[in-house]
Amino acid sequence: METIAIVGSGMIGRAWALVFARAGKDVVLYDPGEGAADRAMAQIAVAAADLAAIGLVDEDPGVITGRCRIAGSLAAALEGAGYVQENGPEGLDIKRELYAEMDAIAAAGVPLASSTSGIKASAFSEGLEGRSRCLVAHPVNPPSVVPLVEIAPAPWTDPDVVARTRALMEEVGQQPTTVKKEIDGFILNRLQGALLNESMRLVADGYVSTEDLDKTVKHGLGLRWSFMGPMETIDLNAPGGVPDYSARYGPIYYEVAKESEPRPWDEALFGQVAKDRRAILALDDQPARQEWRDRRLMALARHKKESDEKFGV
Amino acid sequence: METIAIVGSGMIGRAWALVFARAGKDVVLYDPGEGAADRAMAQIAVAAADLAAIGLVDEDPGVITGRCRIAGSLAAALEGAGYVQENGPEGLDIKRELYAEMDAIAAAGVPLASSTSGIKASAFSEGLEGRSRCLVAHPVNPPSVVPLVEIAPAPWTDPDVVARTRALMEEVGQQPTTVKKEIDGFILNRLQGALLNESMRLVADGYVSTEDLDKTVKHGLGLRWSFMGPMETIDLNAPGGVPDYSARYGPIYYEVAKESEPRPWDEALFGQVAKDRRAILALDDQPARQEWRDRRLMALARHKKESDEKFGV
Repeated sequence: METIAIVGSGMIGRAWALVFARAGKDVVLYDPGEGAADRAMAQIAVAAADLAAIGLVDEDPGVITGRCRIAGSLAAALEGAGYVQENGPEGLDIKRELYAEMDAIAAAGVPLASSTSGIKASAFSEGLEGRSRCLVAHPVNPPSVVPLVEIAPAPWTDPDVVARTRALMEEVGQQPTTVKKEIDGFILNRLQGALLNESMRLVADGYVSTEDLDKTVKHGLGLRWSFMGPMETIDLNAPGGVPDYSARYGPIYYEVAKESEPRPWDEALFGQVAKDRRAILALDDQPARQEWRDRRLMALARHKKESDEKFGV
Repeated sequence: METIAIVGSGMIGRAWALVFARAGKDVVLYDPGEGAADRAMAQIAVAAADLAAIGLVDEDPGVITGRCRIAGSLAAALEGAGYVQENGPEGLDIKRELYAEMDAIAAAGVPLASSTSGIKASAFSEGLEGRSRCLVAHPVNPPSVVPLVEIAPAPWTDPDVVARTRALMEEVGQQPTTVKKEIDGFILNRLQGALLNESMRLVADGYVSTEDLDKTVKHGLGLRWSFMGPMETIDLNAPGGVPDYSARYGPIYYEVAKESEPRPWDEALFGQVAKDRRAILALDDQPARQEWRDRRLMALARHKKESDEKFGV
């Protein structure tokens, strides 16, 4: 798996290029958009310099970007590639067509992995001769800073393709998880949805302000979650571990679940949050705040790396 | 509010003592347990030294602990106190009795705040003459490292008592939120419950391993949450902010909610997680892991303080 093909060079695709290139892989980028791959190359250079400046990569950024090149066609990109990461538009018909095309070109057994956050592998690979090498490898944006990758196979995906994809992700420094059976939203967005559904409800029903809701997580719950996750958190929060914790707090959590009727995401649910957020941050200031977020994410990644070394994982 | 009375000097009580003492307050500790307050004083000294070692306090730890003293009776503790933080056992009858006693002793208007995570202020203050100065100030353990404090008044709590408690928490460097109407679990544990209910279900139903579930949060979702919270996260994740995000992802989150039937926390729900956790960490190793967690929490607190200064909040 020496050469990695990146198909689609938007925000996610170019961050993937950086992930693989900084790990020493040769990367070939393809994007059908006029000039898109060229723009991506320039942005990869900027992002590599940012990572170097904050101490997240040791090599010269120029060496890293030097491992990336542009292909003029899908066929040229896939020729000789040992792994394909696809980052096309989020439409089922588009994906189906693209996977049929890629399956016809790529060498047998080469994994064809999609960055999709919403389309199951079975939906876009059904009927393909090479459906057993198709799967989802769903990153968090941007994968060059946030390491989690959800590996979500179709029922017919070859377990060896899953294992090789997971191993590749580990090799390049990402943190892969396996979604063992297909499910809408995979794992990450189901968890995000569960937290958001309750958060939205609590603001809409007047129990807490949007600002205080965020404070509850960023100054409270989110701290342990950012280096342990929710299961280890509760396992350490009762002397007898998970069963002890469940005996203590399970009844209240069950009540919370029973009270929390599913609510559609309409104006009644999200309207107050939308209004509060615009009072906190004008939409014109969103790009600057996104820049702030990305700087903080990088600083946090560096902190975690240091803490991993100092205290262990 | 110069002198703070800490009633109950267990794990939470002594962390509170440190919170107030490091902010320059005089702290008086009372605990009816034989030798409990003496042991707490020794542990406060250790915790103060830990915070100093990691750069979270600038003063000499001895100066900080020098602001703490022990009272031999509840009356002696409350005499002259401007604010009372109660950390007694989590039983309604015990709390009722204690609040009746404290209400009879403490000077008029002095807030009587409980650290309870599970009992509403209305339940323990009902019928008291001074019920309007009773409320909950629920911390995360330990409040000396995790700054979130949920201020949860009863319907009859004087708004001025709420405002003064919130101001005191801000003054001493905590991050207070207000629970505007009484609700089981306040805000923090409802959010934790929502995430845990879905997490438990996904493991119990075989979609993901316990280890990968934690990875999904600690290497993915938890990163943004640890410095922005869930609302700012989604507001920055779509060009048009919350309404735009809701139009894109609301339908899938609504589906997640509809599929996620409430499930009691029984063996069928938590059994696999309990089993997986014991394979990852023996119960005998729990204390060492808790020590690791606390070191990492302190390091994270220091990182956040630095990032706040460097990039802004």
